[in-house]
Amino acid sequence: MNPATDQTLITATLQTIRPLDEVAMQAARDRQNRLTKPAGSLGRLEDLSIQLAGIYADPLPVIRDKVIITMAGDHGVVASGVSAFPQEVTPQMVLNFLHGGAAINVLARHIGARITVIDMGVAADLDPHPDLVIAKIAHGTANLTEGPAMTPDQARAAIATGIRIVNQQIELGLDIVGTGEMGIGNTTPSAAIAAVFTGVEPGNIVGRGTGVDDAGYQRKINAVRTALTVNRPDRQHGLDVLAKVGGFEIGGLAGVILGAAARRKPVMVDGFISTAAAMVAAAIEPGVKPYLIAAHKSQEYGHALMLDWLGLHPLIDLDMRLGEGTGAAIGISLAEAACKVLAEMATFDEAGVSDKGAE
Amino acid sequence: MNPATDQTLITATLQTIRPLDEVAMQAARDRQNRLTKPAGSLGRLEDLSIQLAGIYADPLPVIRDKVIITMAGDHGVVASGVSAFPQEVTPQMVLNFLHGGAAINVLARHIGARITVIDMGVAADLDPHPDLVIAKIAHGTANLTEGPAMTPDQARAAIATGIRIVNQQIELGLDIVGTGEMGIGNTTPSAAIAAVFTGVEPGNIVGRGTGVDDAGYQRKINAVRTALTVNRPDRQHGLDVLAKVGGFEIGGLAGVILGAAARRKPVMVDGFISTAAAMVAAAIEPGVKPYLIAAHKSQEYGHALMLDWLGLHPLIDLDMRLGEGTGAAIGISLAEAACKVLAEMATFDEAGVSDKGAE
Repeated sequence: MNPATDQTLITATLQTIRPLDEVAMQAARDRQNRLTKPAGSLGRLEDLSIQLAGIYADPLPVIRDKVIITMAGDHGVVASGVSAFPQEVTPQMVLNFLHGGAAINVLARHIGARITVIDMGVAADLDPHPDLVIAKIAHGTANLTEGPAMTPDQARAAIATGIRIVNQQIELGLDIVGTGEMGIGNTTPSAAIAAVFTGVEPGNIVGRGTGVDDAGYQRKINAVRTALTVNRPDRQHGLDVLAKVGGFEIGGLAGVILGAAARRKPVMVDGFISTAAAMVAAAIEPGVKPYLIAAHKSQEYGHALMLDWLGLHPLIDLDMRLGEGTGAAIGISLAEAACKVLAEMATFDEAGVSDKGAE
Repeated sequence: MNPATDQTLITATLQTIRPLDEVAMQAARDRQNRLTKPAGSLGRLEDLSIQLAGIYADPLPVIRDKVIITMAGDHGVVASGVSAFPQEVTPQMVLNFLHGGAAINVLARHIGARITVIDMGVAADLDPHPDLVIAKIAHGTANLTEGPAMTPDQARAAIATGIRIVNQQIELGLDIVGTGEMGIGNTTPSAAIAAVFTGVEPGNIVGRGTGVDDAGYQRKINAVRTALTVNRPDRQHGLDVLAKVGGFEIGGLAGVILGAAARRKPVMVDGFISTAAAMVAAAIEPGVKPYLIAAHKSQEYGHALMLDWLGLHPLIDLDMRLGEGTGAAIGISLAEAACKVLAEMATFDEAGVSDKGAE
């Protein structure tokens, strides 16, 4: 960890983020209206193609290399009994990702995406594997009910690591990134982050995560309330919120988001935890918001409030609540479809089809 | 047209339709609960995999050959000024399908599906093309505001043709069929069908189709009201409703649905017009309903009422209203993903991941 280097990278990244390209968006909009279909009849696929044109600054964007970045981390707050699953499941699921047996593996294969798995702070030591990047900030966060989850330097390191990871993937060809995560207990810091930014009382934003029972659910709400009281995170400062009530994989994903936006790549935001990371990123630099696409509305209670805060309207709602990037995978397939519609459909002129005016 | 042969085929098809296979569904449900994810966390993808297991009578179904059947027909009611586009667009769009330039071509390619285009009753004579099946019942329907859209024999012929078409596709390997259609004016008969079966007043079910203006919209509502008054279709008899206020491509799709269900193949129902066809099929034989999957909620006003009548809950809502099978294509990709999740994910035992009980 080198705090000065990390801060320099973060600052340079933030300074690079620009608004969407209006010229490319207008060209895409004009073309959508000349394609052989009633104007607007492809609904959100049309809107998505226009947003993507603006992100890439390209009136006819093409999505080839699709990457899911799935970041793993552990959470000291599991000691407070907030999760239905034991902490050992985090490294076990990382191995499952590496062996191709998890839901995200199946869905990534289905849409033709690559997955890269990052150990941002798993409490166990993982064996090296060609598909695993070990970028551990620490062996899990501290328990946020007793003090900050991490130090400010660790928060900076998590974000800088995310930026470096996405930059490496962009060098490898990444056209669109889906955010994914794994970390037993990580809906608790995510709910805390959501409560801080939205100002909503924890009881109205905490959900059951992987399926905690009634007593555990009450402990989880209490843990978030205690975390806010003990740490008093400053909602004006994204890094402070991340350090006090966040997680290493959440910080890493915030870095991925900032880094992708700086390089004009769209981010398909997965569910509850990924959206908490997006809130941290947007608090640090609101200019990332136009680069975000909300893949789906998670079944996890409170997710809709978080999307509203970000001004995002999810593409789908399939009652999913798994994380890992599973919702993002489906969203990426829709983004690819949107670009193909824009690029590959014939115009009225090309196809010799009479437009509405011909009536 | 051979009415006796058509009726024999229809009767034999209806007699073949069976309930879903409960044993396969239970096996799929049990397996979903052993896969490495919190139970139920993949939401509707899990439900879909279980339904598909029941349809195929296979606890681990595999979807390989995906087919969109797009049926085209014209409608005498266009003379009443109900559409924003001129009737010549129907054959022009058929050519666009054959040349690969329409939205359904792009989306079918995206999901790896084949398209077959059927002329069920286009008012123009189409040139032969290797990818076009000419199965014309007539050169467009009669104007349903002045009398029946077609004769009972034509209605039977349309349904029997749909059964034959889907049977041919099943012989070629079809694992799942998406319904698609093209026909200037065809939201008007579809709204009439919906009004008959739901009993909803036409003003509450007619939409703007491809984008008719206010005066045209009023003409369209009046056309549906007049059609019901003039023809008095009997909602207890699907064939009577189809003949009096339907269309040839709608009857063809009803046949596709009945034929697919009889051969235990799932039907991904597209939007407004396809759902009207599904209502006709379900009125003829309610046993088809478990074989139906509603791909999406169309933006076309009234579609939600039709889905409710069928007891279907759409997978997605992307504000689409194009038809052609475009929504079905996206839905088919989700169905394929659902099967892959069920078949390809590791179980807790296989992956060495601790289940919830291990806490």
